[in-house]
Order: sequence, then C-alpha cells, then structure tokens
Amino acid sequence: MAQTRILPPADNAYQYPLLIKQLLLSGPRYNPDQEIVYANRSKYTYSDLVERIHRLANALTDAGVQPGDTVAVMDWDTPRYLECFFAIPMIGAILHTVNVRLSPEQIVYTMNHAEDDVVLVHDDFLPILESVRDEIKTVKTYIQLTDDASAKDTSLDSTGEYEALLGKAATSFDFPDFDENSVATTFYTTGTTGNPKGVYFSHRQLVLHTLGMTGSLSANDEMPLLRSSSVYMPVTPMFHVHAWGVPYAATLMGIKQVYPGRYEPELLVDLLKTHNVTFSHCVPTIMQMMMATESIKTADLSNWHVLIGGSALTKGLCDAGAKLGIRMYTGYGMSETCPLLSTTHLKPEDLELPLEQQTSLRVKTGIAVPMVEIEIVDPSGNPVPHDGEAKGEVVARAPWLTQSYFKEKAKGEELWEGGWLHTGDVASMEPDNTLTIKDRIKDVIKTGGEWLSSLDLENLISQHPAVAGAAVVGVPDEKWGERPFALVTLKPGEDASLEDIQKHLQQFVDKGDINKWAIPEQMNFVDDIPKTSVGKINKKLIRDQLK
Amino acid sequence: MAQTRILPPADNAYQYPLLIKQLLLSGPRYNPDQEIVYANRSKYTYSDLVERIHRLANALTDAGVQPGDTVAVMDWDTPRYLECFFAIPMIGAILHTVNVRLSPEQIVYTMNHAEDDVVLVHDDFLPILESVRDEIKTVKTYIQLTDDASAKDTSLDSTGEYEALLGKAATSFDFPDFDENSVATTFYTTGTTGNPKGVYFSHRQLVLHTLGMTGSLSANDEMPLLRSSSVYMPVTPMFHVHAWGVPYAATLMGIKQVYPGRYEPELLVDLLKTHNVTFSHCVPTIMQMMMATESIKTADLSNWHVLIGGSALTKGLCDAGAKLGIRMYTGYGMSETCPLLSTTHLKPEDLELPLEQQTSLRVKTGIAVPMVEIEIVDPSGNPVPHDGEAKGEVVARAPWLTQSYFKEKAKGEELWEGGWLHTGDVASMEPDNTLTIKDRIKDVIKTGGEWLSSLDLENLISQHPAVAGAAVVGVPDEKWGERPFALVTLKPGEDASLEDIQKHLQQFVDKGDINKWAIPEQMNFVDDIPKTSVGKINKKLIRDQLK
Repeated sequence: MAQTRILPPADNAYQYPLLIKQLLLSGPRYNPDQEIVYANRSKYTYSDLVERIHRLANALTDAGVQPGDTVAVMDWDTPRYLECFFAIPMIGAILHTVNVRLSPEQIVYTMNHAEDDVVLVHDDFLPILESVRDEIKTVKTYIQLTDDASAKDTSLDSTGEYEALLGKAATSFDFPDFDENSVATTFYTTGTTGNPKGVYFSHRQLVLHTLGMTGSLSANDEMPLLRSSSVYMPVTPMFHVHAWGVPYAATLMGIKQVYPGRYEPELLVDLLKTHNVTFSHCVPTIMQMMMATESIKTADLSNWHVLIGGSALTKGLCDAGAKLGIRMYTGYGMSETCPLLSTTHLKPEDLELPLEQQTSLRVKTGIAVPMVEIEIVDPSGNPVPHDGEAKGEVVARAPWLTQSYFKEKAKGEELWEGGWLHTGDVASMEPDNTLTIKDRIKDVIKTGGEWLSSLDLENLISQHPAVAGAAVVGVPDEKWGERPFALVTLKPGEDASLEDIQKHLQQFVDKGDINKWAIPEQMNFVDDIPKTSVGKINKKLIRDQLK
Repeated sequence: MAQTRILPPADNAYQYPLLIKQLLLSGPRYNPDQEIVYANRSKYTYSDLVERIHRLANALTDAGVQPGDTVAVMDWDTPRYLECFFAIPMIGAILHTVNVRLSPEQIVYTMNHAEDDVVLVHDDFLPILESVRDEIKTVKTYIQLTDDASAKDTSLDSTGEYEALLGKAATSFDFPDFDENSVATTFYTTGTTGNPKGVYFSHRQLVLHTLGMTGSLSANDEMPLLRSSSVYMPVTPMFHVHAWGVPYAATLMGIKQVYPGRYEPELLVDLLKTHNVTFSHCVPTIMQMMMATESIKTADLSNWHVLIGGSALTKGLCDAGAKLGIRMYTGYGMSETCPLLSTTHLKPEDLELPLEQQTSLRVKTGIAVPMVEIEIVDPSGNPVPHDGEAKGEVVARAPWLTQSYFKEKAKGEELWEGGWLHTGDVASMEPDNTLTIKDRIKDVIKTGGEWLSSLDLENLISQHPAVAGAAVVGVPDEKWGERPFALVTLKPGEDASLEDIQKHLQQFVDKGDINKWAIPEQMNFVDDIPKTSVGKINKKLIRDQLK
C-alpha cells in the first residue's frame, strides 16, 4: 500500500463515523411540518416522526433489545416501517425486513438464520407465525402492529401493541455513536434454487447509498426526483432492499412521503391523485395493474416520475405509460447492491424529443450512478468491448455492496470472485457507457453456439398489439443445444396465434434487430405466467413445468 | 461503545476506501464530450480531462513525486488546476493550494510549513518565488505553468513546462488504493493575527463533502444547481477551500465547466454571456465589481444562480442582483469546514413571491445542509434558545471538518474544544432552524453590557441609497465599554453626511429593528475599506488604524 500521509485529529476532535442517525438530521430541519401520510388512514409531521423514533427506541429497549440484537419487522408499507428503518439501527440493533410473501417455512427459515431476537408483526401476518410457532428458535418476544390499535389475541408471546408501547415510552433517547461498519439491516434474497440467502448492509454503506442516490436522482435533468416540492410514494415493498433505499433519501431531503400500506391498484391510483405524487419506484407487474384501473383514466399523471426495476422496463409498458403522461426510468440493481447501480440518464437534447420518442432511451439499463464502478466481463473475468454488441456478465464495485452472505462464506466468495461483485446479469455496453441488460446468465438461451437473450425476445413479443405479457425460456434441443420456448398471455378480448406472433417477429428479422433463428417454433398461450414472490418471471418453474 | 455486530467481508470482496479517484468515475461516463472551457483561450472534453489527469500523474511521478509528498500549485483558475485537484491526491500525494494573494513572506512561510516537495507555478507568479528563493527550504523542483507554452527563464530549478511534460508523459496511470484517511489537500487560512494556519482534508472527507454538496445543491427547489444542463463557473479562487469544493461536484455530475483564469470583471461577465453560465459562487466584492460593469447591462442573467459567501450577502447587494434577475443564495462555511455548512433554503411557497420580496430570505445564513450538526452555544458551551433573538457561537460537527491545524496541536485543540468545531461566528437561530450570522466573536461590539452585531449595522447603513459599503468596529469608550465606529464608502457622484446616515438608521430604531444606542456617533467617510487577501473587511487593521 502506498505510503500516504495520515494525520491524527486534535485530541478532542469529534470522530465522525457514518451512522444512520445522521440521515435524520436535515429533513426535519428543512421542513418540520412536512407531512408523512399513511394511505387514507392518518398523517403526521417530520417533527412527529422524530419523536416517534425516539419513543420507539425506548420501547424497544424496554422490551429488552440490546445493541447487536436483531429485530425483525413484518408489516405493510407504513410510516411505522419508516420509524423502524431509523430507530432499530440507531440503537445499534439490526433491522431484519422479513419478506412477507415467502412461504411460512421460508419465513421461519430466515428468522432462525438471522437469529431474530424480537419481531414486530402486523396482525394480518400473525397466522403465518402462529402456524410455524414451534419452529421459531431465537425470538424472545413479539410486538403487535395494528391499524386500529386493538391487537388480536395470539398464541405468540406478545409484549404489547406498538402504539400503546410508544405512548408509554419516554420521548427522548440518547442515540449512541459506534463503529460505522456495524450491521444496520439484513434481509433475504430468494433465488429459484436453495434456501434464501441473507445480505446485510452497514451504517456506512446505507449512508453512502443515500448520499449517492440523493445526488444522482436529484440531478435528473427532466425533474429532480428528490427536492423540497417532491411527493414520494413507494410502490416496491419496504421489506425488499429497503424500498430501494428511497425512504432514507426522501427523509434526508425532508420531502412529503405517502405510504400506501397494501398494494391495491385502485388505492394506489387514488393516493397518486389525492397527493399529487411526483416520484415512485415500481415493478412492471404492479405498474401494469395500476394502468389497468378505471380511475387512472381520469388522473393527471404528467408530473409522476417512476423508476422501474425488479424486471426490465419493456418498450410496450414504457409506451403505454407515455400515453398517460407518465415518465418512466429504468433503475438497475439487486438485493446484493443496496440496490442502486445505474439509472436511465437522459441528456438535455434527449428531452427535447416528444415523450413517445424517448421510450427507446428510457428502456435501456442506463448509466452507472456516481461512485459505482461497473464492467462487463467474459467467463474468464476479462472486459468485453463496449460496442453495444458484445455481451458479458455485469460486475460491480461500489461503497454500498453486501460484503458477503450471512453465514454462507463459500457463496459470499463466489459472489465476490476476483474482487468484483458478480451480478449474474448479462449485458452489452454502448460506446456512450449505456448499459443494456440482455438476460440472467442462467436464462440466456444457448442455441447453435450463440447466446440468445430471453429478455430481448420477450420484449419483442410484448410489442404485438394482442399480447399482454411473455416469458421465454430455453428448452433442450438435439440439433441446436437449446431452442427458445415462449409462454404468452393475451390482453382481454384479444386473440393471436403462433403464426401471428412469428409474423410479428419476422419484421424485426427483416430490420436486422434479431436473427432468423431467434424466432421460437414453440409457444404456449396461457392465462398466467408464473412469478416469484417479488414479481419476477419464475423461469426455473417454467423450465421445470416444460420438462 | 455499544456492542454492535460487525461482519467480515468475503475473503476476496473489494474493500472500498473512499478516494478522490471515485469522483472522476461518473462525469466522463455521463457525458464524455461535455466541455471544460478555459476563459476565451481553449476548451477540451471530459475524455480529454481524464487522459490529461493520467498524463499529469505520470509527469509528476517522472519528476520524482511519491505518495505522501506535498505538491504545491500557484495558478489562476484554470482547467490545469482542476487536473491538479484530481491527479495529485490520486497518486497519494498532498495538493497544497497556495494563496497567491499573500505576501511573498507569507507564501514562503506556508511552503516551508507544509514541506512542499514540488511546486507547479504559473510564470506570472515566478517573481514572487524568485524574490524569496533562498528562504524556500524543502522544494526539490518546479514545474512551470504558462498560457502560451513558452516558459520564462527562471533562477528556480525548473523541471520543464507543464504542457511539454504532459505531452511526453504516458497516457495511462494505475491509480492505487490506499487508506481513505490519507491527507488529500492542504491550504492555509489567514487570520488577522499570527502566522497562517494549515488546514487539511482527507480523501474520505472530500468524497463525503462532494456527495453531500451534490445532493443539497441539486435538490434546490428553484433550480437544481448541479444537473446535466447546468453550466458552472467558479468566481471564488481555486486556492481557497478548493473553490468551495464545487469543481469536484461539477465533475462528478459531468456538467459543463468554465474556468475564468483571472478575475477581471469584464472578462467574467463576457464568459457568463458567452456560455450561459447557470451556477457560480462568489464573494460580495467581486459580485459588486461585476455588477458595476457596462456589459452586464445587456446580459440576460435570469438563469444565473450564485451562492454568495466569504462575507455576508447584504440586502442591498441581493436587491441589486434581483433587479438584474440574478438569483443569489447565501452559502455559509469557512476554510476549516471544507467549507459547506449551510445554505439558503427556499420553500416552494417562498418561491411564489416576486424575486424582490425573496431578498430577506436569501440573506439569511440558511439551514444546515444534510449530514451537518450545528448548534449555537454560550461561552460555557451550553446551547442557547432557537428563538431568533438569543446569540451564541456557531459550533459544528460533520464528516468533512478539518481535524486540526497542521503542526499546531494546541490551536487544533482550541478549535475542537468540547468535541465541536468552533467557528468563531456569533449567530441566532430561528424556530424554523434558519441560522443568521450576526458577527465574528471578536468583532461583536460590547456596549453597555449588550452585544451589538457589527454586521447588522453594516447591513443597515448599506441600505442608504448613497452608500456603497460600510465597516463597523468597536472602539473603546469610558462610559459604555465600547461604541460602534463606522467607515463608509459612497457611490460615485453620491453624497451623505453623518447626520444623513443617523437619520436613515433612526427609521430602523422606530421600527424596533435596532436599539437607539446602536446608532454610531462616530463615522469616517473613506475611499476604500481595508480588506484581507480573500476580500473580507479587515477589522483588525481598521481597529489598529483608529487607535
């Protein structure tokens, strides 16, 4: 290591570890009366938020929580959850955001694996825990979350109801300083094989992710996504990568926040309209459900900016959004990356185009955000050319990537092979540094010695006017190794045949966008495409079903 | 310290120290062809910037620079200087930005104190160094900076001319990783007494300052000051607190940058017009000079946003700017604070007021930016009320404050007394968290047992239509302890008497803004008010002269 010069601070200078408590300094200072809304139920101010975080810290401490303990939360997307985002790590404990969409068996697996000490659980999820009660190993007590302050009877060992405990708790907590590398949060990422794996993020990492996100999203040239007049509503769950970390960034900036609770499409649209929401993040599936509601037809959405992630933003969805005035952007990242790696980056000249013509730019995976190193590499780890054609695995370095999987040393080392985090995504990179994800490494269809992107094919099939959605997987083929097989869902009242879709795809062959051999010979028209708990197409299941 | 949980990374995970090289990742990626302009001389792209930084690193290494060495720069505000901002710390050396406005004796003092190894010096400043040549103790060699590639003959030991050395250097340098607490930059702050004191900032601190600044300035509700369509031109020198750190933030965002070279008012206005500059930072003195030019009368300045610092933004200056369409903001900080502590923060409803009516909000010191802890305290270190009236010393904590003074342990401990950095500024804080600096502690006029702010009085005197500027100091008084004494400069062709100014001040007494005893009985009308090398009123000199 280079012999640089490091000077000691003055004897009594304040050492400044990066801690989540610092993310709570500026928002309430910028705007103490700014609102935080819980659906159509209740609202309070940033000043209230601060007091409630102090009360929660006291309530948790009263319930026995110590620094280093793990506190799990099972809740809908609520201001309560936001309070947990701050209070739990701020006392030095670890916030475990439980994926409530997992099976009871998977949930109890993650709780035992994370060694949860205390669980905050909404009454709606009590039956899940009660059903696996005897398998829960480390939990000492439960705190019940309710929307109407009347907690249900439960066979679990309940310390009491959240609001009642907060009401009794002292209003001030002296949040300590500690090592910035202390674990702040953990949650489990589910692949299609094996047990869920626990990723974790330190205080330092979450502070840096928040600062990096605030700068990169605020500097958006179309509209700064996070500024004092913004109104934020998450539409990806808070249990999943801290709702992409945006609640931290929104709180840092002191902007209005709307928490929807449950993801009911009519409710979400109603909240958009009532609060003039300007910024959300969303997965394509939920976006499609919102766009299919009656009420969206009468909404003015020209000021709604949506970062789309989870799975690829298709041209079809982006076009349909543009017709409603919605500005969509691609956001790219994953559970392991905290998650932000890249976003759509529109240049001033791009924005002069009509919104419909910007679609092809918005569906690209975008340009890596500040502080992120990104590369595409071949199987030996060597970079492939940035020519928009060559495909490689996306690898990354950044100050906010999970450093391993909890208690899974070997898998952590595999993730970090060669000192870069391996995303498992295959992408090309254009000379202007724009990344385009082509597929998951395991979903790429290897046909006739070439790599065929299942995502590209899904995207093109989805552009057929009768098609609602498509999933393409590789199936074994004696001659070609693999061939693409498509599952297609149609829009209500629409019809199309295999030949119609093939004819639709032929035009892209004619334009040189794809090769002739990319057109699938096999296609099933289905009512539903199997999805994972986080709304991604479950290709493992599809492949298994096709066997 | 709380027993939190710290998990080790995977064996081969990439440890991510925060280093200045990471600030250079995103700008060239967002916009490789974006321009960096040197006055009306030359321009190049971000891609060129990256290559030149690599070449400079090689040229410096060829000249013998090692990690841990100190490399001083004496230049005008140029893209060369920007290259030094990156290349010198990126090789692990320390950038010493020399204040070229100091006396030759002070300059040689700072060079010896910082133990400079190599000096990059513009030919315009050669005579300064030649005049003190025999007193320079540690410098091994000089690199000459010129604007026309023909270096002057010099008695100094010159390695060669900058452009020639870059031309010969290899185009790629492998910038190493090292401890993020390594010193990256140093410069000297001049008080009115004693020798200049060296402050210093680590890689970690500069990265965090940049990220904090990018978020807080981008989230400005009026216009994000740093976004891809912004055009940035510094109007406070790069040797002074890294031009407030904005060159790092602008480079991170990939925005167009215009470096003016010398601060000639007509040139600055010409550059504003030619490049449609949207964002600058400036001290009041230079702003007044620019506003006094002929050419500004024909400029469209409605898109120019200026952060004013160094000394207070007066209502008079802000009003005059508003008449030209210029949007001014107060920025607050100091050499010791890297510098950003607070800025004007306008709420959406404030912006609905006509620009002229926003002045009273813009002249306030503003609200502390994200990640900054700020307090106002009495002489015992206890917080005083945030009622807009009570005055206390501003103390701060943040991740980017100098940790001491170089080789001045005792002064460093005084700066950090009680674990907070003491700014030496006296301020009040309103219930809405808005800070208003009232004075320097040493400039407060103690009269009849009360604290009278010299800045308040200067501000009110400056609002007299005939007055160009004012300086107020305390002079000893047998009865009252001290009484205010005013130095006043008048606008060209204007006239005013002591009685006129007193009558003007009486109206503020009548309105209850100030007390009757605040009106000075003593006033000198002068041609010039003594200023320090960085353009602040030199009150020490005024007090000495009045003795």
